[in-house]
Amino acid sequence: MARNSRSVFSVDVSGLEPSREQSVSARIRDRLRTAIRSGALVGNARLPSSRTLARDFGVARNTVDDALGQLVSEGYIVRRRGSGSFVSPRLPEHDAPPLVPEREAEGAGAAVTRPRLSHRALSLRTHPGHSSPARSIPFTPSLPPLRHFPRDVWRRLLGREAARPGSDYWGYGASNGLPALREAIAAHASAMRAVRCTPEQVVVVTSTQQAVELAGKALADPGDRAWMELPGYPPVRHCLRAVGVDVVDVPVDDEGLEVDAGRRLAPDARLAYVTPAHQYPLGCEMSLARRKALLAWAREAGAYVLEDDYDGDYRYEGRPIASLQGMDDAGRVVYVGSFNKLLFPGLRLAYAIVPEALVGAFIDVKHVADGHTALLTQGVLAAFIQEGHLARHLRRARATYDERRRAFLEEAAVLDPWLEFGPARAGMHVTARFREHLAGRVDDKAVSEACAREGIEVHPLSRYGATGRGGLVFGFAGATRAATRTGLQAVRRVLEGRAQRGIA
Amino acid sequence: MARNSRSVFSVDVSGLEPSREQSVSARIRDRLRTAIRSGALVGNARLPSSRTLARDFGVARNTVDDALGQLVSEGYIVRRRGSGSFVSPRLPEHDAPPLVPEREAEGAGAAVTRPRLSHRALSLRTHPGHSSPARSIPFTPSLPPLRHFPRDVWRRLLGREAARPGSDYWGYGASNGLPALREAIAAHASAMRAVRCTPEQVVVVTSTQQAVELAGKALADPGDRAWMELPGYPPVRHCLRAVGVDVVDVPVDDEGLEVDAGRRLAPDARLAYVTPAHQYPLGCEMSLARRKALLAWAREAGAYVLEDDYDGDYRYEGRPIASLQGMDDAGRVVYVGSFNKLLFPGLRLAYAIVPEALVGAFIDVKHVADGHTALLTQGVLAAFIQEGHLARHLRRARATYDERRRAFLEEAAVLDPWLEFGPARAGMHVTARFREHLAGRVDDKAVSEACAREGIEVHPLSRYGATGRGGLVFGFAGATRAATRTGLQAVRRVLEGRAQRGIA
Repeated sequence: MARNSRSVFSVDVSGLEPSREQSVSARIRDRLRTAIRSGALVGNARLPSSRTLARDFGVARNTVDDALGQLVSEGYIVRRRGSGSFVSPRLPEHDAPPLVPEREAEGAGAAVTRPRLSHRALSLRTHPGHSSPARSIPFTPSLPPLRHFPRDVWRRLLGREAARPGSDYWGYGASNGLPALREAIAAHASAMRAVRCTPEQVVVVTSTQQAVELAGKALADPGDRAWMELPGYPPVRHCLRAVGVDVVDVPVDDEGLEVDAGRRLAPDARLAYVTPAHQYPLGCEMSLARRKALLAWAREAGAYVLEDDYDGDYRYEGRPIASLQGMDDAGRVVYVGSFNKLLFPGLRLAYAIVPEALVGAFIDVKHVADGHTALLTQGVLAAFIQEGHLARHLRRARATYDERRRAFLEEAAVLDPWLEFGPARAGMHVTARFREHLAGRVDDKAVSEACAREGIEVHPLSRYGATGRGGLVFGFAGATRAATRTGLQAVRRVLEGRAQRGIA
Repeated sequence: MARNSRSVFSVDVSGLEPSREQSVSARIRDRLRTAIRSGALVGNARLPSSRTLARDFGVARNTVDDALGQLVSEGYIVRRRGSGSFVSPRLPEHDAPPLVPEREAEGAGAAVTRPRLSHRALSLRTHPGHSSPARSIPFTPSLPPLRHFPRDVWRRLLGREAARPGSDYWGYGASNGLPALREAIAAHASAMRAVRCTPEQVVVVTSTQQAVELAGKALADPGDRAWMELPGYPPVRHCLRAVGVDVVDVPVDDEGLEVDAGRRLAPDARLAYVTPAHQYPLGCEMSLARRKALLAWAREAGAYVLEDDYDGDYRYEGRPIASLQGMDDAGRVVYVGSFNKLLFPGLRLAYAIVPEALVGAFIDVKHVADGHTALLTQGVLAAFIQEGHLARHLRRARATYDERRRAFLEEAAVLDPWLEFGPARAGMHVTARFREHLAGRVDDKAVSEACAREGIEVHPLSRYGATGRGGLVFGFAGATRAATRTGLQAVRRVLEGRAQRGIA
């Protein structure tokens, strides 16, 4: 193979002059990822040093280091101390079907030509487990217990609203949402989360994901950077990447996102995504100092904070943490809330509350994305909120989840020899890390898979990009005490067996 | 002002080295657009020659020409034969609120810092008239007559499906849609449009826009190019641009998209958007020769064709034009259909039928965009189709629209002195061009505005990027014969007055 077109380790190193609209580092990352996914680079293969790679690609070493760092955080590459970088033995998309790598189309004679997907679409395949929707078993995180939702009330309102004469629910709707729903949301968020807004600042969307995507489009151009929590919620990372935004991982400690690290890693980012009320997956809340530091950075950098308050309505201990949005005097926070977890996931209604100056842009990007959100459901939700059903449902759900949380924490004592639980003062999940003595002896993905075989869903902490000892994420809201006890015993058996055998 | 940072005509010419993920031409285009929008370049201002601009920016002349060409097609710049390029006296966003240009954030002392929108969001502001939803007046294009939809049937199915036990409609759903709906759609599209597919190839989305967006993400990376019909449907252009795809305008003649022109303008495009059954807005259908040429190009280039069959179900004369998808043997066509125009716009249900090899990627991009589409509505639509209500509704609607089409064409004879009507064999709209003698004397935007003051909605043809004599787009499906007659008389009065006074 000719020098300058393919290096010894079967990655195309040609044509990296930045003529197309992607940085050199991103292109190196994409090529390495494609090579790994296509099998050109096999698991456990040792990569050349970054110095060698830099020479092969004809670029600076830190450009290569950037690309490798991204692939480490995506799980394609592992670093072994003192011995270099290796292709991960277990690819992040292990549960995805085998991929046909990008190729030139074949001649016109071929009956069906090969697919040619975009790099961004290929990179999304790293998202695990979305082919089958979440089932209701212990301990699925983020799945609300559906039997507690007052379906009879919802059905009654649905019938009533559908029978309303006129065409409010049938013709085209406003891209920012039904006025009645925007008013109800503004009132709810002000009362419950100390958000300061008018109904004009509310933009109704289908999901948190859509709100993130709209923010990505309105506030960043392709190639612009965004801070993302690490560990953090992978769909948000993928969502931003899908609209061309470069995601920069910023570490999280027990005070939340490390703003100083973000300033060092990407001072010019256009956007920072955070879960300040209840970090996902670690469960901590962002300290006041960090909140202030984050807002100060946004103000100075002319950047925006995307506050995902995904379960801010569920708090069981201590005083409620007010929203970041309520602290912001400079119009730098986009607040995102969702009804899909509060009510039921099949609903698909969420919202962004945006600074006044951004309202027009959010309406524009929502308009071109899908016109507007379905109308009848918006009317039903507006009635559900205005007539007090949401507040009632939240009160009941909060009491139920709190009871389940307490039961979980009591029963979870059986896992004490292996797991160290993090904060569980809010939300619907709690995260535990493996104890020191298991370090290097237990792989959280393998534990998660073994639990799945027992009918238990626990997410491996490494799925969220966490490094270190690994751990497990438990949703506690969906299981009764009896199911919780049985489920935790099953997890215990798995851990016990693995720890004894010392199987990774 | 220092050379190398700002040219004499107040546009920043500094820092164009292609270090960020955008081509130089796109960056020049964005800067000029921002300068025009912010008022730094005022209406009618003459631009320096492209030679001078190329020197100022320090780039090749054809790079500048590319940028100028884009701005001409967006309506920011007009070319006057023999005298050069000028800032358009009437900006495309004339109906948008004044914009604060992108700026560095102010000091931390400022109470509210200035908004800083992305270039792509700023470029979306060119989309006209989406702030208020379409009203039901003559001759709003694309608004189905809502009173013909059998709401009682829909309400009955809604009540029945909402009462179904189990959690199929309440928990998380599959990203590609409810299996029952995918089956119903596959059967409908096969029977009505000669689409060849299995239910596994169907991906349920909220709207044609969303299908276009998913295709843009799955098949193109930021900076990749896509062919777009000119004249064509602006929201599709904006939708692609919002996900970072560079839109290349390809002219349309009375055989549809000029494939040879596309090959010349952007042979390497990843995607071509077409409306082959009924071109929007011109109303022609794509000839067989062009269809074959388009598929051949896609096969050779490894590109994809995005077939928007937005009103393929309504055909009144001649034999139905089969879908492009049905002609494709090479897996290069993504077919898009929507129920929002067939049933009612508030619904928000549409679909893409994708080649087998792309199914996984479409599911991935749908998943990260918004998880999945709302579930209960999917169940209701599945029942509506399976129980024969869709077929019955289409038969009735087709008969009604055909009657209205005939009435429209008869009554439209009053406009004969001014307008030359295009084909009206299908769909819900017809387009007319001003006759030769009005060339240069009547501006279609001004006519459209004058009609709006009479309570009539006719879209100016120039809104769709058409050049030349200008014209008007009439939706005929929403108006009774009486309303049609009154409406056309009003248009006649407007045209008569304008033609006499010779007012542009």
